[in-house]
Amino acid sequence: MNKKTTAHKSNCPINLSLEIIGDKWTLIIIRDIMMVGKRSFRELLKSDERIATNILSNRLSMLEEKGIITKKNDISHKQKKIYSLTKMGADLFPILMEIGVWALDHLPVDKKSTVHLQMLLDGGEKKQKEFLEELKKNHAID
Amino acid sequence: MNKKTTAHKSNCPINLSLEIIGDKWTLIIIRDIMMVGKRSFRELLKSDERIATNILSNRLSMLEEKGIITKKNDISHKQKKIYSLTKMGADLFPILMEIGVWALDHLPVDKKSTVHLQMLLDGGEKKQKEFLEELKKNHAID
Repeated sequence: MNKKTTAHKSNCPINLSLEIIGDKWTLIIIRDIMMVGKRSFRELLKSDERIATNILSNRLSMLEEKGIITKKNDISHKQKKIYSLTKMGADLFPILMEIGVWALDHLPVDKKSTVHLQMLLDGGEKKQKEFLEELKKNHAID
Repeated sequence: MNKKTTAHKSNCPINLSLEIIGDKWTLIIIRDIMMVGKRSFRELLKSDERIATNILSNRLSMLEEKGIITKKNDISHKQKKIYSLTKMGADLFPILMEIGVWALDHLPVDKKSTVHLQMLLDGGEKKQKEFLEELKKNHAID
């Protein structure tokens, strides 16, 4: 669909956000880039959730088009692309955190996969600020 | 699919949450019940986003099965059902707020549809606590 002619279902903030991040995969990819430090297609393909190649490719293009990530060539490998979060992408951090908190409270989470989340929660605002500072250094965040 | 045999893609908290709320409609329904005060199927059907009857019906059943909402008979209308948030449902509040904040910062939101969100943000913790107290009175929150 042409971007310019795409009609929004409504201009409500919740709806506009869900039109971008409201699916089962987009925030998994953001989680992997932001929390796990994956930066290439090959790395992103190797998540526990086993994302399909075409879905990953589709979501990365969409995220780039929306301005949530950028793609650049890897200096050491001509054919390899490196994905970075923009400010808009990094600002998804509080959403991911709250989704994590909700799961910790209400869903049968695997403790092994919550070590990082728990550390950020236990560390409070200070730890989370440090984490975001670190993110800034490695990504395309102005 | 039988609930007991449903396999999760992973037990990561982000993934487990997205398996429930990761779509374009589920949080729209929660928004309408939580923020707009809609409580019946007929009311929920009348959102700006024009949800289809079968999707609404499917998501309400799923939300009930997951323990996020409850359904009870309306005393005044035998055939009418009233939907209420459980504690698990009310706990989606911070996720909705952060999704709203992200949209306010990065998407072309319609100011008319952000009055309530802006009030909750401007009012800070105090206003948000009051809102949740009010929610408790009207829903199935222990």
